[in-house]
Amino acid sequence: MHLPDSTWTEAGALDTDLALLPVGSTEQHGPHAALGTDVATAEAVADAATDAYDGEVVVAPSIPVGVAEEHRQFPGTLWVSPDTFRSYVRETVAALAHHGWDRVVVVNGHGGNVPALGEVCATISRRDAAYAVPFTWFEGVGDHREEMGHGGPLETALLRHAAPDLVREGRIEEAATEAAERWGEWVSRVNLAVDSAEFTENGVVGDPREGSKERGEELLALASAALVELLSAIEGRDLAPPERR
Amino acid sequence: MHLPDSTWTEAGALDTDLALLPVGSTEQHGPHAALGTDVATAEAVADAATDAYDGEVVVAPSIPVGVAEEHRQFPGTLWVSPDTFRSYVRETVAALAHHGWDRVVVVNGHGGNVPALGEVCATISRRDAAYAVPFTWFEGVGDHREEMGHGGPLETALLRHAAPDLVREGRIEEAATEAAERWGEWVSRVNLAVDSAEFTENGVVGDPREGSKERGEELLALASAALVELLSAIEGRDLAPPERR
Amino acid sequence: MHLPDSTWTEAGALDTDLALLPVGSTEQHGPHAALGTDVATAEAVADAATDAYDGEVVVAPSIPVGVAEEHRQFPGTLWVSPDTFRSYVRETVAALAHHGWDRVVVVNGHGGNVPALGEVCATISRRDAAYAVPFTWFEGVGDHREEMGHGGPLETALLRHAAPDLVREGRIEEAATEAAERWGEWVSRVNLAVDSAEFTENGVVGDPREGSKERGEELLALASAALVELLSAIEGRDLAPPERR
Amino acid sequence: MHLPDSTWTEAGALDTDLALLPVGSTEQHGPHAALGTDVATAEAVADAATDAYDGEVVVAPSIPVGVAEEHRQFPGTLWVSPDTFRSYVRETVAALAHHGWDRVVVVNGHGGNVPALGEVCATISRRDAAYAVPFTWFEGVGDHREEMGHGGPLETALLRHAAPDLVREGRIEEAATEAAERWGEWVSRVNLAVDSAEFTENGVVGDPREGSKERGEELLALASAALVELLSAIEGRDLAPPERR
Amino acid sequence: MHLPDSTWTEAGALDTDLALLPVGSTEQHGPHAALGTDVATAEAVADAATDAYDGEVVVAPSIPVGVAEEHRQFPGTLWVSPDTFRSYVRETVAALAHHGWDRVVVVNGHGGNVPALGEVCATISRRDAAYAVPFTWFEGVGDHREEMGHGGPLETALLRHAAPDLVREGRIEEAATEAAERWGEWVSRVNLAVDSAEFTENGVVGDPREGSKERGEELLALASAALVELLSAIEGRDLAPPERR
Amino acid sequence: MHLPDSTWTEAGALDTDLALLPVGSTEQHGPHAALGTDVATAEAVADAATDAYDGEVVVAPSIPVGVAEEHRQFPGTLWVSPDTFRSYVRETVAALAHHGWDRVVVVNGHGGNVPALGEVCATISRRDAAYAVPFTWFEGVGDHREEMGHGGPLETALLRHAAPDLVREGRIEEAATEAAERWGEWVSRVNLAVDSAEFTENGVVGDPREGSKERGEELLALASAALVELLSAIEGRDLAPPERR
Repeated sequence: MHLPDSTWTEAGALDTDLALLPVGSTEQHGPHAALGTDVATAEAVADAATDAYDGEVVVAPSIPVGVAEEHRQFPGTLWVSPDTFRSYVRETVAALAHHGWDRVVVVNGHGGNVPALGEVCATISRRDAAYAVPFTWFEGVGDHREEMGHGGPLETALLRHAAPDLVREGRIEEAATEAAERWGEWVSRVNLAVDSAEFTENGVVGDPREGSKERGEELLALASAALVELLSAIEGRDLAPPERR
Repeated sequence: MHLPDSTWTEAGALDTDLALLPVGSTEQHGPHAALGTDVATAEAVADAATDAYDGEVVVAPSIPVGVAEEHRQFPGTLWVSPDTFRSYVRETVAALAHHGWDRVVVVNGHGGNVPALGEVCATISRRDAAYAVPFTWFEGVGDHREEMGHGGPLETALLRHAAPDLVREGRIEEAATEAAERWGEWVSRVNLAVDSAEFTENGVVGDPREGSKERGEELLALASAALVELLSAIEGRDLAPPERR
Repeated sequence: MHLPDSTWTEAGALDTDLALLPVGSTEQHGPHAALGTDVATAEAVADAATDAYDGEVVVAPSIPVGVAEEHRQFPGTLWVSPDTFRSYVRETVAALAHHGWDRVVVVNGHGGNVPALGEVCATISRRDAAYAVPFTWFEGVGDHREEMGHGGPLETALLRHAAPDLVREGRIEEAATEAAERWGEWVSRVNLAVDSAEFTENGVVGDPREGSKERGEELLALASAALVELLSAIEGRDLAPPERR
Repeated sequence: MHLPDSTWTEAGALDTDLALLPVGSTEQHGPHAALGTDVATAEAVADAATDAYDGEVVVAPSIPVGVAEEHRQFPGTLWVSPDTFRSYVRETVAALAHHGWDRVVVVNGHGGNVPALGEVCATISRRDAAYAVPFTWFEGVGDHREEMGHGGPLETALLRHAAPDLVREGRIEEAATEAAERWGEWVSRVNLAVDSAEFTENGVVGDPREGSKERGEELLALASAALVELLSAIEGRDLAPPERR
Repeated sequence: MHLPDSTWTEAGALDTDLALLPVGSTEQHGPHAALGTDVATAEAVADAATDAYDGEVVVAPSIPVGVAEEHRQFPGTLWVSPDTFRSYVRETVAALAHHGWDRVVVVNGHGGNVPALGEVCATISRRDAAYAVPFTWFEGVGDHREEMGHGGPLETALLRHAAPDLVREGRIEEAATEAAERWGEWVSRVNLAVDSAEFTENGVVGDPREGSKERGEELLALASAALVELLSAIEGRDLAPPERR
Repeated sequence: MHLPDSTWTEAGALDTDLALLPVGSTEQHGPHAALGTDVATAEAVADAATDAYDGEVVVAPSIPVGVAEEHRQFPGTLWVSPDTFRSYVRETVAALAHHGWDRVVVVNGHGGNVPALGEVCATISRRDAAYAVPFTWFEGVGDHREEMGHGGPLETALLRHAAPDLVREGRIEEAATEAAERWGEWVSRVNLAVDSAEFTENGVVGDPREGSKERGEELLALASAALVELLSAIEGRDLAPPERR
């Protein structure tokens, strides 16, 4: 059940402890993919999994601005500090849990959110009256994930399938030819770059031409299946803490 | 220009210093109006004003969870603390200003956000590299505003016109008959109630039957005209601070 | 019982759960009214109500510096951030409640404190072992309140009655002739001014000549009666939270 | 010039960079001395020094609640956390400095405030546009200081001279006979007591009978002379930071 | 130059902008490896690299307690919150930079610190007068890193070579037989475990018997070579931020 | 038991509620004593007392960076803010208490840490599930303490005895001749200096020539005996809070 579209009486009639909280980012995704890509993809995966899951799942509204300062040189990129992002997620999850939806998957569409989500979900699970884990959709697509990039084949594919209005088809070629091959600037497995503009001219990493609509359909199927499996595991999970050694 | 739907190259081609940041709330609006009412109405007003304004205006993605703990007894209501809400708004405005869109109207759909928005906009205007003011749409609708209530005539009307899927027409009558007449529980002009559940059984204040689609159309015209006037005033405003006395 | 003037043994002998916490501001009030106006008026109202109330009431010492940065261009104006102000009020109320005085009215003399007090009293009532509401004296004076202004008829009147040493009678005429007619600079019901110096030359809003000593006496009677009524309502109020819907 | 009693025009006419900020505490001082003792004594010293100083000095309103949780078992004791206290002092000093009064002595009447004041004054002097030092009056009274205690000879004496209404003469004998001889419970020069109630039954340390009015007059003379000397030293002090070694 | 062992005059005579800040953790490492493992290994790598580097490098004292709450069920594990850890690292780096050592590698020995270090180093590099990157030694050991585990082959090997007193040889067999094979409890590439005690009985992951002293020597050589390479890259790096797109 | 050198199984076998947490500082100690002096001395005292105490005592790893900004002009001095220092100490003590070691002495080697430690230990003892007191070693050495200084006779003596590698014997004479006689720059018992560089050229206060190895041995004996006495007192102390008066 998509919370923003429901009334409180409808929400109150639910019998579940599962909720999804989509989180994205408003940030550059190259000249061909819209700034809202990470919200659109997170929502697409959350919606598909909710439909596929055999049981009720609450879907909270999407959090649209995340940890994305690394793209600050590109116009339109928005960001908040990791502290503020964690607080916003933590308190929203607490409100969900207040209504009994206390097993929450944060469905994430942006790589830059990953460390902050890991931290805040651990905090929630240890301190608050809720259990939360983060699920980043492109981690749940099998071997495709190795081609993730940024505005690259995976995101372009998923958008073409799930939100085609967010893709500027006429700029795919340009996006591809100026793209970087790899995220970051690495020495001894340490990324020396502070911002993405240090290693990509147009904000793209990877080849968006490899992101067909058909591939997008497959990605959505894979990611939503992974999320469904996660929901099943969480629903039945014993949350009692382990004993002191 | 709606930022989430645009690419960074499109955003970078803009020549304006005006931006709108819609903020709402996900909270009960009675048995007949959806939890996402305050986001939907804020977006409707922001979009209408952007269309009507003679000049470019950036529209940021909507902030979906605000200061709404007062509705916590009603399922589905989400909230964050005022501190977190202020930080989220402040940092998002700072990111807008980073790209040159440094005259920002926060377009608000929720009464409970008003004090926090007043505070954070003053902080932004005094401390940060931006000027920000809050505009709450139901303050910009002339004498209609005296009937605001909650899930009452104004919100119901605007939804019917701008987002009819968020209204459950079959429950309007029920919503009206169990509604409270007035917000709060007042002694010496002090509201003694901590939560709305202390004075309304079903979450409604005011009579949603008075909220026709036609009235909604008028409200949207009034609110967006007021916002357009505000944008004009802000665009030309001299922001130099006054001299020391 | 005025706490600073009492010993702990006297305080310990009290049998009440009611306390008043006066809060003011040290800020410009025009060339004719002292910087301490908002403390003096809050104290006058708190003292008068304490005298008039049929029962024991603890009166805490007054908090002298509040949320007043909007007057920063005028020498002598002091302020703290809203965050610090809220913490100072919240923790002082918690200490009062620690001793059993856990129904607290914050008696306020300054308009700029109102949003922060609304927020912190809600926080106290929801999170802490106390119930608190703010009472701003010029809200409790019937139709007079429409003439509030700043350093205008109401404050001048109350000072003349309750703290005449704080009024420079010889500058009333000057104060009046250079005063602004209205607080703020409004477009679409939004105040575009960040600081009061943007719309008032001498810091005054309204006509202090309309503030006679007799009017001050009436204001004090009205405000203290309103506060007495509030104390009565609070003393007997059932503070159990409403049920979940 | 006592700021609360002055208008902004009077404050604006001053030509000085010196200010005093009295800070006290509202806390138990035994059965014979009022809870407001530490404010009254700080104010007495600040006023006497202002009178005696050959030059203009701004006197801010007194901060009435400080770091006093150690007295929490005694009714009427109020306190805020050290963090909140430091913020309140720091921001008030910043406002003073904003008006050009940027050499500030915090005139302190409460031992429990000393560590927090030392910290915040160092922070102010290093980070903010002001120089601040704390002066605790009973440190400036020569050898008398060794008899400080709590509600003991020094405070009783100064109250009798400067604020006799705050002393209950009829309870001095009782106060003395039940008093502790020493502050704290010491092992290896470490105070093991968390609260004063662990070592004093009635809140008193030292013998208030040794605190005559005449002694109070002498204490005030000594303390105000010390403060005058401090003001002179600060007024002429070179505040340029030392060179890097 | 190891800072704690040097005088300020010696430190002041240095001509470098490179510094290492070792950070570890005090946490369980199975029945056979000491709680101080992560500090000892980080120091060993920092020292070896400092010796090998052709140039001066400042080595700060090691930060001994990190982000390790996940091991809380095992006696002796210490931890601070990620917020406190970040502040401690950030401010220590700021002090290093204050003395001109403003290119800093945080040499890390604990996997649980990685997300917090990534965040704080980005914050430092964007906001403060320093450039900082984290280097986690077991990321710099080639393919060995795939066997990392916890108290497993890699850490046991490095300890045996660099700090043999921290290994209880008599318990290696027991450590190995009760060890978990894998870190975490995974569904859809999401770790559902909040604490390590959910998946390891004795705190060990991986087989410590595979951690010979000779392997430890090789690991140290690999890790310190990687760190030397990183130092070289950082020393010459152009830190000017990229242009706005 | 020194925690970093022990395994969790060894730590888990302990039966005590006593722990020591050494805290120092990395800061200038003149041209003759190393930056790590305050850690080395705190550790020496903690270790000696642990050896001498008739019972088990846990010794946590030393916190190496404290409140030392006052020495910032001298190269190599490191510091964190008092807030961060308090958080780091508080959370580390909470982790010790989590394992049952909930009577903690913070063994301190640096005067600048004293106020922050007093505050945080009171906070711990009042709010957390632990009791903590600070012990600063040079307070526990009888009349020697009056000669403390900085890098002066006491610290030099203790280093010579306990950590002779940290003393540059060849610079003792120079250290002595350029040393200041007294800490601070005092008027009316207020220290006007913000930084130590305002009153000492080489960072030394007092005469290090008076710090023989033999004196160091005596100091260590005195300090550790005082700490042993403190441990005994704490072990048996009734921690129940006193009654409300």
